[in-house]
Amino acid sequence: MTRSAITAQVLAANQRFYDALEALDIAAMEACWSPAPGVACLHPGMPWQRGWDEVSSGWEVILANTGYIEFEIVDVEVTVNDPVAWVTCVERITSAAPEGAGTAAAEVAATNLFVLDATGWRIALHHASLIIRPGHGEEG
Amino acid sequence: MTRSAITAQVLAANQRFYDALEALDIAAMEACWSPAPGVACLHPGMPWQRGWDEVSSGWEVILANTGYIEFEIVDVEVTVNDPVAWVTCVERITSAAPEGAGTAAAEVAATNLFVLDATGWRIALHHASLIIRPGHGEEG
Repeated sequence: MTRSAITAQVLAANQRFYDALEALDIAAMEACWSPAPGVACLHPGMPWQRGWDEVSSGWEVILANTGYIEFEIVDVEVTVNDPVAWVTCVERITSAAPEGAGTAAAEVAATNLFVLDATGWRIALHHASLIIRPGHGEEG
Repeated sequence: MTRSAITAQVLAANQRFYDALEALDIAAMEACWSPAPGVACLHPGMPWQRGWDEVSSGWEVILANTGYIEFEIVDVEVTVNDPVAWVTCVERITSAAPEGAGTAAAEVAATNLFVLDATGWRIALHHASLIIRPGHGEEG
């Protein structure tokens, strides 16, 4: 398989992750994740969640508290080092709470690390953190 | 080599990275990093830096603006998937500006990804983000 074909597979796995999140679909989200014991997830400002029990509980809380969420994924870089690949990107997020009248916007930097198993590329680590732009919340 | 010996190598590489930072030593920091083109670095609240030119410029700014920095590394997990390994941890940071009279404390979650080359485990990705504890700066 060519390098560009592998990169396309990884980008497709990255897109499935954001599609599952936009669909607020915990089963689709679970299907994106590696069944390996060492999975790790960090949402902006939060501490580490390790293992699928903690990671899935975290997603359930987020999905239950989200009425609508949309991702524009930009500034994407893919590095492949078989059987591992990682994507660094920026998530431009528009979201609303379940009962919320208005929407909120955020810009989040993400590391998504994938491992290749018999089923394809599955995510093993998601680290997301807010990008603070001068004039939009930074001190001083 | 046993799994525990590999894990010890990765933890040693992780420690060298923090030792270089505590020593404010840009040459030691450079020695920790992979020479591969896809290196990426993200400091808390900042956008992505990609490639060694951007990454090293970022470290130079941080080192020039730091008089003192000390790391206590806790909550450490290592995952090895040869030739890649990643560490997730929490950095308890005490730091001071060059001319600063006082110190500041922060708790930062980090992902450090290492790749194995002929020289050993070298860091290819560092993603760091502030952990916000309730009552320590969170809204509401």
